[in-house]
Amino acid sequence: MVPVLILMGSQSDWPVMQKAAEMLESLGIEWQAKVVSAHRTPDLLKLTMEQAEQDGVPVVIAGAGGAAHLPGMLAAFTAIPVFGVPVPSKQLKGFDSLLSIVQMPKGVAVGTLAIGDAGAGNAGLLAAQVIGSFDSDVRNRVHEFRKAQREKVMANSDLELPK
Amino acid sequence: MVPVLILMGSQSDWPVMQKAAEMLESLGIEWQAKVVSAHRTPDLLKLTMEQAEQDGVPVVIAGAGGAAHLPGMLAAFTAIPVFGVPVPSKQLKGFDSLLSIVQMPKGVAVGTLAIGDAGAGNAGLLAAQVIGSFDSDVRNRVHEFRKAQREKVMANSDLELPK
Amino acid sequence: MVPVLILMGSQSDWPVMQKAAEMLESLGIEWQAKVVSAHRTPDLLKLTMEQAEQDGVPVVIAGAGGAAHLPGMLAAFTAIPVFGVPVPSKQLKGFDSLLSIVQMPKGVAVGTLAIGDAGAGNAGLLAAQVIGSFDSDVRNRVHEFRKAQREKVMANSDLELPK
Amino acid sequence: MVPVLILMGSQSDWPVMQKAAEMLESLGIEWQAKVVSAHRTPDLLKLTMEQAEQDGVPVVIAGAGGAAHLPGMLAAFTAIPVFGVPVPSKQLKGFDSLLSIVQMPKGVAVGTLAIGDAGAGNAGLLAAQVIGSFDSDVRNRVHEFRKAQREKVMANSDLELPK
Amino acid sequence: MVPVLILMGSQSDWPVMQKAAEMLESLGIEWQAKVVSAHRTPDLLKLTMEQAEQDGVPVVIAGAGGAAHLPGMLAAFTAIPVFGVPVPSKQLKGFDSLLSIVQMPKGVAVGTLAIGDAGAGNAGLLAAQVIGSFDSDVRNRVHEFRKAQREKVMANSDLELPK
Amino acid sequence: MVPVLILMGSQSDWPVMQKAAEMLESLGIEWQAKVVSAHRTPDLLKLTMEQAEQDGVPVVIAGAGGAAHLPGMLAAFTAIPVFGVPVPSKQLKGFDSLLSIVQMPKGVAVGTLAIGDAGAGNAGLLAAQVIGSFDSDVRNRVHEFRKAQREKVMANSDLELPK
Amino acid sequence: MVPVLILMGSQSDWPVMQKAAEMLESLGIEWQAKVVSAHRTPDLLKLTMEQAEQDGVPVVIAGAGGAAHLPGMLAAFTAIPVFGVPVPSKQLKGFDSLLSIVQMPKGVAVGTLAIGDAGAGNAGLLAAQVIGSFDSDVRNRVHEFRKAQREKVMANSDLELPK
Amino acid sequence: MVPVLILMGSQSDWPVMQKAAEMLESLGIEWQAKVVSAHRTPDLLKLTMEQAEQDGVPVVIAGAGGAAHLPGMLAAFTAIPVFGVPVPSKQLKGFDSLLSIVQMPKGVAVGTLAIGDAGAGNAGLLAAQVIGSFDSDVRNRVHEFRKAQREKVMANSDLELPK
Repeated sequence: MVPVLILMGSQSDWPVMQKAAEMLESLGIEWQAKVVSAHRTPDLLKLTMEQAEQDGVPVVIAGAGGAAHLPGMLAAFTAIPVFGVPVPSKQLKGFDSLLSIVQMPKGVAVGTLAIGDAGAGNAGLLAAQVIGSFDSDVRNRVHEFRKAQREKVMANSDLELPK
Repeated sequence: MVPVLILMGSQSDWPVMQKAAEMLESLGIEWQAKVVSAHRTPDLLKLTMEQAEQDGVPVVIAGAGGAAHLPGMLAAFTAIPVFGVPVPSKQLKGFDSLLSIVQMPKGVAVGTLAIGDAGAGNAGLLAAQVIGSFDSDVRNRVHEFRKAQREKVMANSDLELPK
Repeated sequence: MVPVLILMGSQSDWPVMQKAAEMLESLGIEWQAKVVSAHRTPDLLKLTMEQAEQDGVPVVIAGAGGAAHLPGMLAAFTAIPVFGVPVPSKQLKGFDSLLSIVQMPKGVAVGTLAIGDAGAGNAGLLAAQVIGSFDSDVRNRVHEFRKAQREKVMANSDLELPK
Repeated sequence: MVPVLILMGSQSDWPVMQKAAEMLESLGIEWQAKVVSAHRTPDLLKLTMEQAEQDGVPVVIAGAGGAAHLPGMLAAFTAIPVFGVPVPSKQLKGFDSLLSIVQMPKGVAVGTLAIGDAGAGNAGLLAAQVIGSFDSDVRNRVHEFRKAQREKVMANSDLELPK
Repeated sequence: MVPVLILMGSQSDWPVMQKAAEMLESLGIEWQAKVVSAHRTPDLLKLTMEQAEQDGVPVVIAGAGGAAHLPGMLAAFTAIPVFGVPVPSKQLKGFDSLLSIVQMPKGVAVGTLAIGDAGAGNAGLLAAQVIGSFDSDVRNRVHEFRKAQREKVMANSDLELPK
Repeated sequence: MVPVLILMGSQSDWPVMQKAAEMLESLGIEWQAKVVSAHRTPDLLKLTMEQAEQDGVPVVIAGAGGAAHLPGMLAAFTAIPVFGVPVPSKQLKGFDSLLSIVQMPKGVAVGTLAIGDAGAGNAGLLAAQVIGSFDSDVRNRVHEFRKAQREKVMANSDLELPK
Repeated sequence: MVPVLILMGSQSDWPVMQKAAEMLESLGIEWQAKVVSAHRTPDLLKLTMEQAEQDGVPVVIAGAGGAAHLPGMLAAFTAIPVFGVPVPSKQLKGFDSLLSIVQMPKGVAVGTLAIGDAGAGNAGLLAAQVIGSFDSDVRNRVHEFRKAQREKVMANSDLELPK
Repeated sequence: MVPVLILMGSQSDWPVMQKAAEMLESLGIEWQAKVVSAHRTPDLLKLTMEQAEQDGVPVVIAGAGGAAHLPGMLAAFTAIPVFGVPVPSKQLKGFDSLLSIVQMPKGVAVGTLAIGDAGAGNAGLLAAQVIGSFDSDVRNRVHEFRKAQREKVMANSDLELPK
C-alpha cells in the first residue's frame, strides 16, 4: 500500500507530528514524513501534491503552528483529503494554529484535529479509518485498537485516595 | 454506492447542514440525513453507527452546536471516519461548538471543519475527497469542481471603485 | 447512605478529581470513584448510570478535559443530578473543557464547577449541599465547614509587608 | 412542597430566567421568583437566604449578567445548593457572566448552567433532578420529560433538501 | 491622614497586593491591609465598609482572583471609591478575575487596574492620585515619582546587541 | 466646584460617554466634555492635561475604542486620577478597547470601568465618589442615589410568568 | 509611478478592501485591485508576485477572512512588503482572520492592520507612508492628510447633552 | 544609509526586540535602538519622531507589551511607516499587546507583526523589504536571505522516528 504522507512546516514540529507516525505504525500502515514549509518553500507545495496524487497517496497529514497555512495550502493543490494538526505555538498555545487551520473558506477543506500530541495521534488514526473504509483488514485493525484501548480503561477503573 | 450519512443534533441544525448535502449532490454522491441527538437520544448513537458499518457507509458527517458532543460520541462507536461541523451557537457564535468538537482526546478522532455554512459544505467536499482516494470517477469530479471554482474566480478578478 | 459517585474520563484526571473525594470525606459522606471514558468505553455510560439509579445514588460528579463529553453524556442517560468538573487541558488550560461541559443544550443539564482543583473540591461540597437539603445532619456539617472556613480567615486577617 | 426560589439581579433578566420557571412548572414543581440585586440590594442577600433555609427551600436558582456576583454571593450565605445562570450581556454575550459565576474559589460552590435560555431551562431541570433524588414522584416526572423529548426527536428525524 | 485600606480575598493574594502597599509607602501614604473574603466571610463586607466610612478612609483597594467578587461587593456597601486588582488565577491567568471585576452593572462602580503586580502597584498610585486631587503635598509627591521614573528611563535608553 | 473633564477619542463615542455626563448631572456635579484624539491630535494631550491641573480638575474621564490609547496617554501627562471607559468596537465589541485601557504598565494607572454604557455611567459615579471622599455633600448625594436605586429594586421585586 | 497592488481572496471582500483604494486615491497614489484566492487559485500567487516585482510595485496590500492565508502566501513569493487586512468573518468577526494573518513564523513577514474598514483604510495609508519615505511629494501629502484630520477633530471638539 | 530606528517601551523588551536588530544586521542594514516609554517619557515621542523625519529614517520599529501604546503613539507623531511588535506580557502572553497595537483607528496606521521573537525578527525583515522596494541591493539581499532559508529547509526535509 502507498504510504500516508506526513508533512510539517518545520523540523521543530516533528516531536508533535511523530505521534501521527507512531499511530500509523501501530496500525500497520506505512508512512513517509517530510518538512515542507508553506512560507519558506512555497514552490514545493504544488510539486509535492502532484507527486502524491500520481503515487496514489490516500491521505495527507499536515501540521503547522502559528499562522499555520500549510494544511490549507496543500489542500488547495490536491484532491487528496488533508488532515490538519495545530502545533502548539509559543505564546498562544496553538489557539492561533487551530483557527488558521480549521476556518477554511468553502471550496477547500481541511479536516482538523486537536491541538498538539493528541491531535497528531488522532490524525494518524483518522487516516487509518479512511483507509479502513475501503480495506477491511485496516478496518479490523482499527477495531482491535479500540478494543485494546477499551480494555485498558476497564482494567484499571477503580480509584482510591492515596493513604 | 452507499450514501454518506449526515447526522445532526437537532432539526434546527439542518439549514447549516444541508450545505453538506448540496455539496455531495453537486459531486454526484448520494447522502442520507437524520436527526440523532447525543443528549436526547443517546441510545441511538451506537445503533446508528453499527447499522452504518454494516451498510458500508464510507464517511459520517455530524453537526452540532454548543456543548457539541454528537460528532465525538459517534466516533466513539465506530471505525468509520467522522467529520464534525461546529454549528453556530446563539451567544458564543459556534466558538464553543468548535472547541467541543475538535479537542478530542487521543484514541477517538473527529476531523473538524469550519464553523457554520462553509464548514458544512466542506464536510461534504472532504467526504467526496475520501471516496475519491479509492474511486477515480469521484476524484475526477472533485478536480472538475476545483477547476470550475478556479475559473469562476479568474473570470471576475478585476475590481473598480463604484462611481 | 449510598455513596456519591465520582467518575472521570481518565486515570490522569484523578489528581484533580480526588479533591472532590477529600471534600466529601471531610463532610462525612461516602463516595466511590471510577474511570469511565465517554470516548473509549461508551458502552459503560448507560450501564453505569442505570446501576447508579438502581442503587439510589443521589449525585454524580464527573470530570473530564478537552472535548469533555463525559458529564453531558452521563446526564443524558440518567435523571440523577450530574455535576461537571472541567479538568485543565494541556494547551488551553481547561478553557475548552469548561465550554464543552457547561454549554449543554436545553433538556439535559450539567451543573458545572470551576476549572481544576477548586472546581473538584466544590463539586464535592455541592453534592453535600444537595444531600443536606434532605438530611439535616449533612446540612449541619456543611454549616460547620463554612464556620470553620470563616474563622480561619478571620484568625489571620492582618497583613504586613515583609521586613 | 416548598417552592424552588428563582432569584435574579434585575427585572431585565426575567425573559431569560422565566425559562427556569416554565421548566419547573412543566415538571409540577412550585417556584417563586424575585429580583435581588447583589450590588444594589446587598443587604437582602443574607436575609433572603436565611429565610429560604428556614422555609426549607431545597434549591436556589440565580441568574445574573456581566460581573455576575449574585449566584456566588447567595451561595456564600447559605448551605442550600445554588445553581447559576449566566445571563447574556450586551457586548460580551454572557462570556463575562459565565466566568464570573463558574470560577468560584474552593469552599463556596455554584453549579453553573449554559449561557442564556438553554441554561435557565436546564437550571429548572437540574433543580427537579435534585428533588427527584429524594422524591420518586419527581424522579418519574423527569424520566417522562426525557422520554417525551426522546420521542419528539425520533418522530421527526428524517431530513430532505427543500425542493 | 487616615490610611488607605487594602483588602483581599485570601492571604495567598498578598504577594501581589503588597505592591499596592509598597507604592503607597513610597509616596508617603499610610495603609492598612486585611483579608476579607467575599465568599468565606460575607458578613464582614458591610461591617468593614461601614467602619471605613466612619473612619474617613478616602480610598479602598481590593484584590481577588477567579470569580473575583470582593471589589464589587465592597463597592455595593460603600460610597468610598473602590479600586479593584485582578489577581492572576491558576488556569486562566487572571482573565476571569479581570472580567469579574471590571464588568460591573450600572450603579455600582469599581475602577479596575491591570492583572497582577503592575495592577496592584498602580492601584496604590491611583489611590495617591485621588488623594492628591485634594492635597497638594501628595500631588507633588506623585509628580516627583513620575519625574524619577522618567529620568530612570532616559538615563539608560541606548541599547546594543550583546557581543 | 471645578467641573469633571470628560474626554473621548471621537465624536462617535459621545452616545456612550454622555452616560457619564448624565450621571454626574444627576449627582449635581459639573462636567465639561471634549473630543481629544490620542492619534489624530496627539499634541493636545499634554496641553489639555496641563490646563486641567492648573484649573484644579479633580478627575478626568476618558473613553476610547479599539486600540484605545487615550486614557493611558492622558494619564501619562498628569497626576489627576484618570478613569477609562472602553467604548464598544465594531467587530470585537470593546474587548480590544478593554485590554488596551486596563493593562497599563506599572507607573501609570488608569482606573477602568465596564465596556459601554454601564461603564460610562459608572465612570461618572466613581468620579462623584472620589469627590465625595473630600466633600460630605457629594458623599451624601451618592448615598441618596444608592438608596433610591435600592428602593427601586425592592418596589418591583416579585415576578410572574406572563399569562 | 507604478500602482500599489490591492489583492483579496474573494469579490465579497471588496466592500472592505475598497477603503484601501479610496485612501490611496485621496493621497494621489495609483492602485490596481484584483481577486486572487490563495485556496481557489493557488497557481496565481507566484505569477502575480513575480509580475509585480518585474513591474516595480512598491507595496502589496492583501485582504482575506477566516483562515486568511492570502497575505502570508503572497509574502512567501515576493520581497515586496505585504500589508495584510483581516476581513471580518461571519461568526468570529475577523478574530480568526487577524490571528491567521499576523502570527507569521520568522522569515516571512506580513505587516498587519486592524480588522475591517479601519484596517483597510490604514493599509492604504501605510502604503503611502512607505512610498513617502522615498518620495517627498507623497510624504508631504501624508502630512497634509494628517493635518486635515487634526483640524477636523479640533473644529468640533465641544460636546453637549441633547436637550 | 540612515539607520532604521528600533524603539521599545522598556529595557526589559530588548531580549525580544534585538531579534529585529539581528535581522537588520544580517541584511546589511544599519539600525539604532532606544528605550522610549509612551507612558513614562511621553514628551519624547514627538521629539524622537521629529528628529527621525529630519534624519531621513525610512522605517521605525516599535515594540511594547500589555496596553502597548508606543507603536500607535509614535505613528501619531510621524509620517514614517511604523511597524509594531507585540511583546509577550506576563499573564496574557502578548494577546493584550497584540490587540493594543493592531486595532488602530482609521487615520493612523501601525503595521503589526507576530507576538514575540518571530514578530521582532520579521519587523526587521519587513523594514528591509520596504527599503528594498527603492534600493535593488537591499532587495537582492532579501532574495538571498529567502533562498538560504529555502535551501536550509530542503537540505533537511526527511524525518524518521527515533529508534
